[in-house]
Amino acid sequence: MTERQPVELPKAYRLLNHGPTVLVGSAHAGRRNVMAAAWSMPLDFSPPKVAIVIDRNTLTRELVEGSGEFSLNVPARAIARETLVVGSVSGRDTDKFAESSGVRAFAGSHIAAPLIEGCVAWLECRVIPEPHNQDRYDLFLGEVVAAWADPRVFRDGHWHFAPDTPDALRSLHYIAGGHFFETGEAFEVEPDTAPGTPSDVSL
Amino acid sequence: MTERQPVELPKAYRLLNHGPTVLVGSAHAGRRNVMAAAWSMPLDFSPPKVAIVIDRNTLTRELVEGSGEFSLNVPARAIARETLVVGSVSGRDTDKFAESSGVRAFAGSHIAAPLIEGCVAWLECRVIPEPHNQDRYDLFLGEVVAAWADPRVFRDGHWHFAPDTPDALRSLHYIAGGHFFETGEAFEVEPDTAPGTPSDVSL
Repeated sequence: MTERQPVELPKAYRLLNHGPTVLVGSAHAGRRNVMAAAWSMPLDFSPPKVAIVIDRNTLTRELVEGSGEFSLNVPARAIARETLVVGSVSGRDTDKFAESSGVRAFAGSHIAAPLIEGCVAWLECRVIPEPHNQDRYDLFLGEVVAAWADPRVFRDGHWHFAPDTPDALRSLHYIAGGHFFETGEAFEVEPDTAPGTPSDVSL
Repeated sequence: MTERQPVELPKAYRLLNHGPTVLVGSAHAGRRNVMAAAWSMPLDFSPPKVAIVIDRNTLTRELVEGSGEFSLNVPARAIARETLVVGSVSGRDTDKFAESSGVRAFAGSHIAAPLIEGCVAWLECRVIPEPHNQDRYDLFLGEVVAAWADPRVFRDGHWHFAPDTPDALRSLHYIAGGHFFETGEAFEVEPDTAPGTPSDVSL
């Protein structure tokens, strides 16, 4: 079973702040699905909100609109192939949780949408209904109601991708055509010439 | 001078698809500014659109609302310190383009907002007015009207961060408190077991 610990909600934005590709879990009326999405971002700190693009032709769209819920899961490189596959086929054509798929789900605490094994962070979200955004831009806003992370790589409110962190545990950044980058070297900047304290808000 | 070549608009989304931290350039009525933003994402392929969060208390907000334009610039690690500084101070208190700041601007082709030297990609954007999103969520949508990239790291429609690419040229992923990751190792996945062709749209 995937290790996970709760992340305090005001720090949940940090799970997405570095722009990883995510998996979107959804469930409604006896059906469930998972797809990959490169287009998501934090939208607010507290209560934490997120924005994500969900194409109108996807089964995920139908399930998210039906249930008003979705999970965002940050896949690790160990499941890069599964990430590409669930982003490449429709849940209408195939059961993405079939035994042969290698994709395993587990239950969240606040929503019925599945969370995905092999990820390193999980956000349980409720849709903030904004029909104009959904209809015109395929853009969904959500409030994060619970957040979790794998303490091997996220603890004390920070990601810890160190030189000795296995590639398999690093988060992913998808481009196109099967090309990914993994989250790379960590470094710290001390803005010694900056007046005042660096603010998360203004950055 | 920063090297740059035009990027065809249907591939402009790839400049942001991996979730880099960006610099937002703005200008209006004789004033100009630049700030850092970790919360941005592509919103559509063609015509390309983007979404970005611009806090209501920033000078950038005032200039973007006044002009209806902004630039998104993808900073390289070489200007990580400047990225943190322009994300930590307000343009109301300091001229972020002062000689001592190390931040240099150049002119775009379609908009008056400044583009920033030392970056590896640039998107010239016009605001798609959505007052409800702007007022309620600090969320701005924009259409990309021109795009550029440094051919040392982005050419033929793809990022080329290879093992011998200098760290100084890699894009950045900000977390909080001065902590960054650089864009890391590239790898490719062949979804040999996936029926059909991987689709950028569904991912």
